[in-house]
Amino acid sequence: MTTTTQDAYSQLVALGREAGLLKSMEGLLGWDQETTMPPGGAEYRATQLALLARLAHERLSSDEMGELISAAESSIDIEADTVEAANVRAWRRDHDRAVKLPSSLVEEQAATASAAQHEWAEARKDSDFRRFLPWLEKTVELTRRQAECYGWAEDGEPWDALAEDYEPGCTAAGVAEVFGPLRDRLKSLLDELMGASVRPSGRLDELELPQDQQMAFVRDVAGNLGFDFTRGRLDRSTHPFCGGSHCDDVRMTTRFHSGMIIDALGSTMHEAGHGLYEQGIPFEHIGTPCGSSVSLGIHESQSRMWENQVGRSRSFWEWCTPRLAGHFGDVVSEIDVEAAYQCANRVAPGFIRVEADEATYNMHIMIRFELERDLMTGNLQPADLPGAWNEKYRDYLGLEVPDDRRGCLQDIHWSMGAIGYFPTYTLGNLYCAQFFDAACEQIPGLVDGFAEGRFSPLLDWLRENIHRHGRRYTAAQLCERVTGRPLSADPLMNYLEGKLRPVHGL
Amino acid sequence: MTTTTQDAYSQLVALGREAGLLKSMEGLLGWDQETTMPPGGAEYRATQLALLARLAHERLSSDEMGELISAAESSIDIEADTVEAANVRAWRRDHDRAVKLPSSLVEEQAATASAAQHEWAEARKDSDFRRFLPWLEKTVELTRRQAECYGWAEDGEPWDALAEDYEPGCTAAGVAEVFGPLRDRLKSLLDELMGASVRPSGRLDELELPQDQQMAFVRDVAGNLGFDFTRGRLDRSTHPFCGGSHCDDVRMTTRFHSGMIIDALGSTMHEAGHGLYEQGIPFEHIGTPCGSSVSLGIHESQSRMWENQVGRSRSFWEWCTPRLAGHFGDVVSEIDVEAAYQCANRVAPGFIRVEADEATYNMHIMIRFELERDLMTGNLQPADLPGAWNEKYRDYLGLEVPDDRRGCLQDIHWSMGAIGYFPTYTLGNLYCAQFFDAACEQIPGLVDGFAEGRFSPLLDWLRENIHRHGRRYTAAQLCERVTGRPLSADPLMNYLEGKLRPVHGL
Repeated sequence: MTTTTQDAYSQLVALGREAGLLKSMEGLLGWDQETTMPPGGAEYRATQLALLARLAHERLSSDEMGELISAAESSIDIEADTVEAANVRAWRRDHDRAVKLPSSLVEEQAATASAAQHEWAEARKDSDFRRFLPWLEKTVELTRRQAECYGWAEDGEPWDALAEDYEPGCTAAGVAEVFGPLRDRLKSLLDELMGASVRPSGRLDELELPQDQQMAFVRDVAGNLGFDFTRGRLDRSTHPFCGGSHCDDVRMTTRFHSGMIIDALGSTMHEAGHGLYEQGIPFEHIGTPCGSSVSLGIHESQSRMWENQVGRSRSFWEWCTPRLAGHFGDVVSEIDVEAAYQCANRVAPGFIRVEADEATYNMHIMIRFELERDLMTGNLQPADLPGAWNEKYRDYLGLEVPDDRRGCLQDIHWSMGAIGYFPTYTLGNLYCAQFFDAACEQIPGLVDGFAEGRFSPLLDWLRENIHRHGRRYTAAQLCERVTGRPLSADPLMNYLEGKLRPVHGL
Repeated sequence: MTTTTQDAYSQLVALGREAGLLKSMEGLLGWDQETTMPPGGAEYRATQLALLARLAHERLSSDEMGELISAAESSIDIEADTVEAANVRAWRRDHDRAVKLPSSLVEEQAATASAAQHEWAEARKDSDFRRFLPWLEKTVELTRRQAECYGWAEDGEPWDALAEDYEPGCTAAGVAEVFGPLRDRLKSLLDELMGASVRPSGRLDELELPQDQQMAFVRDVAGNLGFDFTRGRLDRSTHPFCGGSHCDDVRMTTRFHSGMIIDALGSTMHEAGHGLYEQGIPFEHIGTPCGSSVSLGIHESQSRMWENQVGRSRSFWEWCTPRLAGHFGDVVSEIDVEAAYQCANRVAPGFIRVEADEATYNMHIMIRFELERDLMTGNLQPADLPGAWNEKYRDYLGLEVPDDRRGCLQDIHWSMGAIGYFPTYTLGNLYCAQFFDAACEQIPGLVDGFAEGRFSPLLDWLRENIHRHGRRYTAAQLCERVTGRPLSADPLMNYLEGKLRPVHGL
């Protein structure tokens, strides 16, 4: 690099880092809102968050940013496999998208989302789709306009333009290509499992356990997985999430009921997976693209791996079952490794996505993907959503949806205007299984080590192969680098079949 | 107002509110840092806070702000007793001060303060003044330069320019005029009390009480005083403080030891006094001068009133003693109203300001005021501070300071560059006593009502006369409006003599 180039790049980094700082504070204020803020703070908090978002967007979409990006591009090898080139490429992409969106549309979407979320919550309470319908229509119209501002490839469709926010490079056609074989194999597996005579024991989840002991237990587990509590926290919130500010201040939450310890543990291990990813991003890159995560799908691959591939394995329960006894005493004396393992691996189709097991979960996602894709092309009208929803639940899961509260009104996403988001959950499961296969191939005795509490070989491998790169590679590039293959449904299905058949006596 | 004026004023409000929003987030991040943030977050938190401070300062000192202020001034009656005029006057003052300070000095002060605080903490640990001396010298030099940037009146001195940040309108000569008579009467009172044969009982403070029960107890008291927990929180921190974001999201903290319940209760009532002030500021003015507090002295008058005039009154303990029993059970069975009242009103000269009682506290402040005033004029060299400090402790409190840790290294303020701050503590006590006299005159049975838990007459009076005005009046104007007299040492001394003599059997 010449001095001038270096200057342009340094200035670009400084401006980009300022936008990053503003976003890091959005993260903190968002966490505070869900865990700590007194209810009276809600109104002004919305104003604080809106200002941070505007200031970050101003920097990202500014002419100055555009000029600095051009200057940096003009004198480095922009396709090189370096941190600098990766940062400039990512800033180019983010800047170009930011300038395409008129602020009038951004503001209208923010205002609509705020009102629509409120109406959705009320409508869900009363299972009253008619109440939500005008807001869904408005949201669909605005997201279509947003898609038009971004544009899409000639052989693409509007959905692609929106999904780019959550899973860069992802297209509806690409998703459909992976989801197709997944759906077929999954349907066969579910038919098999539902026809099996063995029902795994749910006894562990029925035990009433004090919530402060549950907190101590899940903290113990998260710390053993490698979550660094000097650079993060674990608190309670209604809906578990992982947020916070940056790699050295990661805030995750979980939830407790008097029973359902598997839910509390699973939620914690899931969020710890997100948290370990965040903590594995190098501080030196913070505020730049290489200091942030690749995509929601890759993020989800990390949370699912600790929740499922680790937390629902027999090895894990060999280590964890005695720990249960250490924390809860005699109350759990009847639970042996087999009982705990079974409880973590029960499968049963249900109406609610967030309560779904490892196998049926992906069916919920595929249904949403197909519906939102059709809403965007116009093949499905918002008014026809409940009928289309219920038909797919009948077809995919053999269920008769009793009401819209347990049907198309259950998720918040569409009311927030988040269309293109849902598939990242299943993409996460797919990436996860494929990454985990690679880890097992490369680390001898990986899964057996869980039984002795040896989780660091997996964490080290994830840090080395995924976390430390931040956004340096796209999801597809990362998948090829780490696994040597493009994304496929096979690893996930092999994993599910290999585990769930024996649990059900097949 | 003409339409154009209204436009200028509206634009001014919009820009000012944006600066206010940024400051409200500084408040939240500061609270989080002291209560919640994992240690790893410290480095980036400093960067986040610096950005918020810079963005707020940019807005306040901008040419746009200056022009909008001028436009607003040119067509309203700027001396009128209206919210608009008060806001414009305050913005004019803040803007003019902001533009006088070159950002190079601001940055040098921030960097020095950060390093000096660290060195001060280390020096205090080892009672090593020589270690801190170069940083004190640097700080004194920078604050003198800061004072020169601001300037002071012809008959004034550098200290005045600095105190303006904490207590607008306050001058060293004015402070000395009030502190002089206070010192003389206080010295006589202390001589009397120390010579008395009766020593109030400290039994209540010796009882070991579980800390979670202490938290429940002080929350109960704070709620009864009128603190609204739907618009605020109470948490723990090493040093109690009241911070947060704005009137509808007030974050206060307290501290607990196994004994010393009077300290936990006093700290809580003190911070609740600050919190009640903040909660009493109208939301509609938030982000404008009329939506913030008058000065540190007026703020302190509120905290001291609930801590002392209420919390150390016999009436309060008539209400509170049975509540103690309700929270702690048999452990406190030996404590009757008299024992609790005595424990809350013990007087004993000591080395440490933050542990001082109601009477000796002001001596600690007067010593610091005289010393920092001399540091600013150059009559005292930083190297001579320990000697001057120890001499004054001998003179004012009859104490031989054993080491600098318990002497001139005990407070953080000077290491932060906060010169001109200390007197606001005693000004607060003075305003407090004078306001409380007025409240007693205007509300029949005020103090007797505390015995029945009737605190709302006092809170309503404070809301009406002080809280709701925000920064509409200066401290001196407010004092005249509320009490009909300028600030005087008499109300505080009458109060202290009237209470403390009988407690000591005089």
